[in-house]
Formats: sequence, structure tokens, C-alpha cells
Amino acid sequence: MSPSRSRSALVAVTALVVTGLTGPAAAASPEPARGARCLSREYTEPQLKNLQNVDLADPKVGQLGIYHDELVDDRGAYRGTIMGRYEVKAKTPRGAVLTHYTEDIFLTDGIVHAEGVADFRDVLAGRWISYRAIGVDGVYKGLSGRREWRVIVPDEPVDARITVCG
Amino acid sequence: MSPSRSRSALVAVTALVVTGLTGPAAAASPEPARGARCLSREYTEPQLKNLQNVDLADPKVGQLGIYHDELVDDRGAYRGTIMGRYEVKAKTPRGAVLTHYTEDIFLTDGIVHAEGVADFRDVLAGRWISYRAIGVDGVYKGLSGRREWRVIVPDEPVDARITVCG
Repeated sequence: MSPSRSRSALVAVTALVVTGLTGPAAAASPEPARGARCLSREYTEPQLKNLQNVDLADPKVGQLGIYHDELVDDRGAYRGTIMGRYEVKAKTPRGAVLTHYTEDIFLTDGIVHAEGVADFRDVLAGRWISYRAIGVDGVYKGLSGRREWRVIVPDEPVDARITVCG
Repeated sequence: MSPSRSRSALVAVTALVVTGLTGPAAAASPEPARGARCLSREYTEPQLKNLQNVDLADPKVGQLGIYHDELVDDRGAYRGTIMGRYEVKAKTPRGAVLTHYTEDIFLTDGIVHAEGVADFRDVLAGRWISYRAIGVDGVYKGLSGRREWRVIVPDEPVDARITVCG
């Protein structure tokens, strides 16, 4: 079991110009209604613990990982804790590795649950990963939107964003 | 948010004589087929991180918690890591607090996934909690059975058992 959910693979620097605003996942983003209140957060996400049994060169259905990360703001202050799991659910003939992610994000001002399917190839390539997020407590309660993250350098903290509106 | 998934409530010592072999959950345990190979493990389960927003005096549907624990054998050696989440799913007129638990258990010799519903009142009372477990990797692969745990003293390591057969 590699100690990384994705960082064992080399990330091509040229892949990092792809953002969450350009991919199919972003195209499916819910458009907030006019006048909606939105909360947007950006963090660095260091990993405290990360275990998985995924064969990164050829992921198999049923392989999975778990992780315990923290969220830190741009001043280095603790803003929250994430625990998540992912599991390879299907592979398509064209090579997509459909991987289900589920996360609970305990922020200092509330709780967000995030869940969705990503292509594990995008994780390995350092592209923005994006799936649905709903606020379940605190200032986020009743809001919904997206949780996004991307690998910058394998085994280093990832970039993280949460945007929820309502 | 209390730092405990259950330990904030006092556990009556008299409740601790109840075991997983006597409750309804145990009654639903799968009987291993004759000649089945079984693996049984007993651990102490110290908690590394535990966050929740459950109103222990009156849990509400949708309240949830996350935890990151370790499993230690009777010689104090590290045997694995658990990450889990629980969420209150329903309350019955007679007072049961049906709480869904899902856990991934990365042991030094394989991986077990456990999932099921417990009555949160049993957690608070220090009774054995028991739900289904399936082996997904290593020596546990292809086996199924139960994951069990109970609170001994609030905010202290819990007793843990895993038994899978196949």
C-alpha cells in the first residue's frame, strides 16, 4: 500500500494549467441563482494520513484509499479537518477510471459534506478535481456547491477550494 | 462540536456486562459455514482524531461524526488504522437513534470494510456495537463477518473485534 492517494505518480507541470473551470465537471456545476449568497474558501491541504491499495499504473475496480487531511488558510492558520475515502467503481473501454470520493469537512465555522465521481487519471495528472458539496452545519448549512482540489506535487499539500451558494 | 463520538456521555459500569453476543445485532450475525476459515482479531482502539456535531442528549437526524483511530494488539504493537464516519439516519417513536456507520480498516495484513446501522443509545451505554464487515484485500479478501466495538470509558480507547469467515 502506497502512502499516497495520488502523489506517487509524477505530475507533469504542463498539466497544471488546466483548471476546474474548463473540464466536464465544471461544465456540470450548478449555476447559483441570481442574488444567491455564496461562500468561497481557498486552502492549502496538508495530509496527515493517507492509506490506499490502488495500483496506480492500472487501477482496479474495488481498490480504495482513505485520508485525513487538514485545511490551512493563506496565513497558515488551521481552518478545518477532512476525512475522506475513495474507491474505483468502474473503468470504461476508453480508459476512464471512475472513482467515487466521499468526504466530510469539519471547518472551524461549520461542516460540509462532499461526494462525487472523478476520473482517477485527472487526479494523477494534477488536474482540478470537482464534485458536489453540501453544507450541513454552521454557516454552510443549507448551501450547496462544489468542493475542488488538485495535486501540485506528489506527496505534498494539495490546493483546495470550497464554494457553496444558496 | 464535541471532541468525542460517544465518550462525552457517562458510561454506567453496570452496562458493560452486555456483550455483542446477546443483542439483536448478534442474533443477525451470519453463521459461518461448517469448515469455514475464520480470522478473529481483538484490539484496543485509541483515537487520534474525532469530530462530531451530535447533540448527545438528543441526537438529530443528519448529525454526524468522523474519526481516525488506530488498532493496537495486546502487546501494544500497531496493527492498523481506521477511518470512519457515522450519521444519524432516523429516530423511532420508541426512541431508537438509528445511526449509520461506515469504516475502512487498513490492517497490516489486509483491508476490511465495515458498514451498518447501530442504535446510538447502545454506543452511549457502552454496549457492544456490531455491524457487517467484508475483507477487500490481503488475508481478509473474500471473507465476511462482523466488526464490533464498545466504549469502556468515555474519551478512552475502545475495545475492538473483527471476525471474518469464508
